Amino acid sequence: MSSLNIHGIIGYTITPFSADGQRIDFDALGRSIDRLIAGGVHAIAPLGSTGEGAYLSDTEWDEVSAYSLEKVGKRVPTIVSVSDLTTAKAVRRARYAEAHGADVVMVLPASYWKLSEAEILAHYAAIGASIGVPIMLYNNPATSGTDMSVDLILRIVEQVDNVTMVKESTGDIQRMHQLRRRSDVPFYNGCNPLALEAFVAGAKGWCTAAPNLIPALNLALYDAVLANDLSQAQALFYQQLPLLDFILKGGLPATIKAGLGLTGLEVGDPRLPVFPLGDNARNQLKGLLEAV
Amino acid sequence: MSSLNIHGIIGYTITPFSADGQRIDFDALGRSIDRLIAGGVHAIAPLGSTGEGAYLSDTEWDEVSAYSLEKVGKRVPTIVSVSDLTTAKAVRRARYAEAHGADVVMVLPASYWKLSEAEILAHYAAIGASIGVPIMLYNNPATSGTDMSVDLILRIVEQVDNVTMVKESTGDIQRMHQLRRRSDVPFYNGCNPLALEAFVAGAKGWCTAAPNLIPALNLALYDAVLANDLSQAQALFYQQLPLLDFILKGGLPATIKAGLGLTGLEVGDPRLPVFPLGDNARNQLKGLLEAV
Amino acid sequence: MSSLNIHGIIGYTITPFSADGQRIDFDALGRSIDRLIAGGVHAIAPLGSTGEGAYLSDTEWDEVSAYSLEKVGKRVPTIVSVSDLTTAKAVRRARYAEAHGADVVMVLPASYWKLSEAEILAHYAAIGASIGVPIMLYNNPATSGTDMSVDLILRIVEQVDNVTMVKESTGDIQRMHQLRRRSDVPFYNGCNPLALEAFVAGAKGWCTAAPNLIPALNLALYDAVLANDLSQAQALFYQQLPLLDFILKGGLPATIKAGLGLTGLEVGDPRLPVFPLGDNARNQLKGLLEAV
Amino acid sequence: MSSLNIHGIIGYTITPFSADGQRIDFDALGRSIDRLIAGGVHAIAPLGSTGEGAYLSDTEWDEVSAYSLEKVGKRVPTIVSVSDLTTAKAVRRARYAEAHGADVVMVLPASYWKLSEAEILAHYAAIGASIGVPIMLYNNPATSGTDMSVDLILRIVEQVDNVTMVKESTGDIQRMHQLRRRSDVPFYNGCNPLALEAFVAGAKGWCTAAPNLIPALNLALYDAVLANDLSQAQALFYQQLPLLDFILKGGLPATIKAGLGLTGLEVGDPRLPVFPLGDNARNQLKGLLEAV
Repeated sequence: MSSLNIHGIIGYTITPFSADGQRIDFDALGRSIDRLIAGGVHAIAPLGSTGEGAYLSDTEWDEVSAYSLEKVGKRVPTIVSVSDLTTAKAVRRARYAEAHGADVVMVLPASYWKLSEAEILAHYAAIGASIGVPIMLYNNPATSGTDMSVDLILRIVEQVDNVTMVKESTGDIQRMHQLRRRSDVPFYNGCNPLALEAFVAGAKGWCTAAPNLIPALNLALYDAVLANDLSQAQALFYQQLPLLDFILKGGLPATIKAGLGLTGLEVGDPRLPVFPLGDNARNQLKGLLEAV
Repeated sequence: MSSLNIHGIIGYTITPFSADGQRIDFDALGRSIDRLIAGGVHAIAPLGSTGEGAYLSDTEWDEVSAYSLEKVGKRVPTIVSVSDLTTAKAVRRARYAEAHGADVVMVLPASYWKLSEAEILAHYAAIGASIGVPIMLYNNPATSGTDMSVDLILRIVEQVDNVTMVKESTGDIQRMHQLRRRSDVPFYNGCNPLALEAFVAGAKGWCTAAPNLIPALNLALYDAVLANDLSQAQALFYQQLPLLDFILKGGLPATIKAGLGLTGLEVGDPRLPVFPLGDNARNQLKGLLEAV
Repeated sequence: MSSLNIHGIIGYTITPFSADGQRIDFDALGRSIDRLIAGGVHAIAPLGSTGEGAYLSDTEWDEVSAYSLEKVGKRVPTIVSVSDLTTAKAVRRARYAEAHGADVVMVLPASYWKLSEAEILAHYAAIGASIGVPIMLYNNPATSGTDMSVDLILRIVEQVDNVTMVKESTGDIQRMHQLRRRSDVPFYNGCNPLALEAFVAGAKGWCTAAPNLIPALNLALYDAVLANDLSQAQALFYQQLPLLDFILKGGLPATIKAGLGLTGLEVGDPRLPVFPLGDNARNQLKGLLEAV
Repeated sequence: MSSLNIHGIIGYTITPFSADGQRIDFDALGRSIDRLIAGGVHAIAPLGSTGEGAYLSDTEWDEVSAYSLEKVGKRVPTIVSVSDLTTAKAVRRARYAEAHGADVVMVLPASYWKLSEAEILAHYAAIGASIGVPIMLYNNPATSGTDMSVDLILRIVEQVDNVTMVKESTGDIQRMHQLRRRSDVPFYNGCNPLALEAFVAGAKGWCTAAPNLIPALNLALYDAVLANDLSQAQALFYQQLPLLDFILKGGLPATIKAGLGLTGLEVGDPRLPVFPLGDNARNQLKGLLEAV
């Protein structure tokens, strides 16, 4: 595990569907992955929220996972989201991803019933014990319904050996301050409009769907931070913020899929009940893409 | 649809598992259904939150659904929860339940991505158009992450013909006041510690897992309300409130399964990551059951 | 203290101002008090939220307090709100009210800085030690910014001898259930649209500004509860609910003052920045008053 | 107004009391002001939250205001908080402050009853119309109970001529992003643990009580930002963050007063119900002050 260095711009993949929404369009998936790598991302994260992982059948999930790993082909590290409602199913996915070449698995404590801290810890411990690759713990109460406190996160990091990275998506910069003050665990930002401040506070990477559309700006922001050029970082951030706000507010699958279509890669619509982008919003997105 | 009269005590079933958690214990499921009916419930609701519907595979869900409907055998009306993450999968479940004899289907707008009001409405409309039985709309932000306002609920009731009942589980009595003031739609209470006040405010029924353990008290409360005997209703409510608080706080699958075990029906544990009841809580539950 | 029995409908007074808002209109205040008593309220509570106590100078507060107590003249018990930002000033007001004949003082833990539980407890203890009349503890986070848990409330009741009543205005019926389950302290409801359910759950009284406008309906609801007539109580509640919702949503000082004007008693406007009722809302209120 | 340039580190004053809490200790107040100016602050803000303005009588408020303005004596600009519950009283304070030499007045929409947006706007307009100096609009829902959206803030800025600065204390960096994206109004940060990110996002100043204790570190952070030295700014921020977290969590009046005592300036305790710092916390603070 020690040689792995996850950092910088970590790009999410979408999951393209056929026009009727029934089948996965693997060809388009492959091309979207090539675009991300050509854009310069430092790592790729399939089957996350943006990848509609939660909306796939188990068979589809396996196929997308295997295909994505093979397509990336170790050109950059791959972080596969393996969250599932039961511990048994999350363990199965984690093993599957590892067996097919995942460098890291990402785990959100997805649940229907609210979990106690002991239940969350046991969930991570069970997954950790079943695989040999590192786990990126993922906190995102907006989608999971579970908000892990910094206390709990650090307890999990301490007690589960292969939980070695933390992705924080609450958008609350104080969580990152606390992680930094109290631990050496590398943390990653999952909230697009916090990109500038998270890097400034010490985040090691930015997990984002934006490189599907504006990879050069995302990378330039990271480079400005590395170059210690604050005013340049600020200017680059405010340049891309309108688009970052737009994709967050409009929903990542809908906006990113529309944006890929607008930039020449047809990937279909999100699965219902999630709507595709409406015409007005699509025109707004077109304007934003032309402006940056 | 017009002849159906869902009212009174609507009992949730649990889903019993084998000791290793891998298989459904259909024999125990059948006995738990017989117990509920023997206890006097006015309707039965399989595969809800308490039934761990979200934690079953599609095959398991189908089997539990078909088995439960056959076992109830029209002795009382059956309301099957058919919620699923995609509209397509919820439609499939709704049709399956109807084909196997469900009198009503219950739909929670389960989602991973937050849904807009238009998306929620379209979800209900699609399910409604695919079946011929009534839908009980179910609002429970604590588990679904989506809080439907009274405005939205009434819009759905108006626009989707077979949404003819509303189950409100926010625990906010003001929602029921608004439903009553602005509409004639029958509403049902899904929040156990609100049982007394919901009936007083005009709820037509109480959807609850409690009749697995204390059916006589649940029914007596309803009867006192029907008899217009406020002081009796109050006394009966406060008598069962400690248990109602306990099962809500301890988590319904864990506490109801433990309570069934304590009262002679072994149904296994909830599926991980949800823990079974610990020893202390089990003793507390034993004391509460003996006290009522 | 033991002979005091605060119960039933506890009516708030407003504080009438002259047309320019500068002076107190004591004559109108006197008449509003006579109206409340003629309407049949079981107790009167001056200088609460509705009475704009927070918007008066210290001199004005003293004058309104003394005048109100004299005007009520022990015809019914009087509960004077003595809340203030510092402990010293709240103590001064409590002593003043007692010296002028208050039967009870009401204390909200008003604050600018958030108070710890120890600070809140010490605040009540200091006030309690300075007077000989009972204190009604008042929990209303919407105006005070401080939410006292049931645990804290019961600790204060236990440790401060003359805190002998609790007024709960969160609108959360579960707080009342907990007070009832864990203590014998009498509790009172301060949330108008919870009037029915609070009585049903065991509240001993309803603190409300509504008897300024519809005393007969308020009293009839209480009587129906005492008569154990649930269906009558429900009908009376839903009859007055539109008005109760309206005065809560429109702001009590603005709506009650407008309603008094509409029913023949001119009491001026609230003090800015609080606006008087606009024309549309005034017409709505007129319609509601005619309907009940 | 145009020549005024409020920026950098804006230091709050405390209000020292005599040992019995009854009188203002003006001598200590004067020395605390001299310390702030000697420490290098770019502006001084008396009678804010830290200055316990809400806990003073009107007479005390006037005296502290006049004394502070005279003591600063235009060595740096002075921003006097003039918030009060009624519009009339806030206007009076604003005029008083202007008459005694205030360069700017700060206004929080303090209220007891929740204010509508129209009421808030009218409140600012009335104060603005009554004075000739600029107003710094202050948003701090944690103390005022009123959260002004960015929309509302910008509407006030547009419609009230002398509202020319915005102080944002929600701690939500996205508010600052929106202010920056949609307007040229200078904004200031009032949340201590957001100091680094607020400057990075473009805040023109940091309103803080910290320079009473660690002025050199506060100024160095600002200088590093001006020098475009991100890594230096980050290092300086994390160096002072433990103290910033501590004073926020412990309450500004209690912790700053204790810290002044520990560093040689006795200023008494906060007024009850706010407690002075306990012994444990005082020792912790001592350790933090020695560490930086």
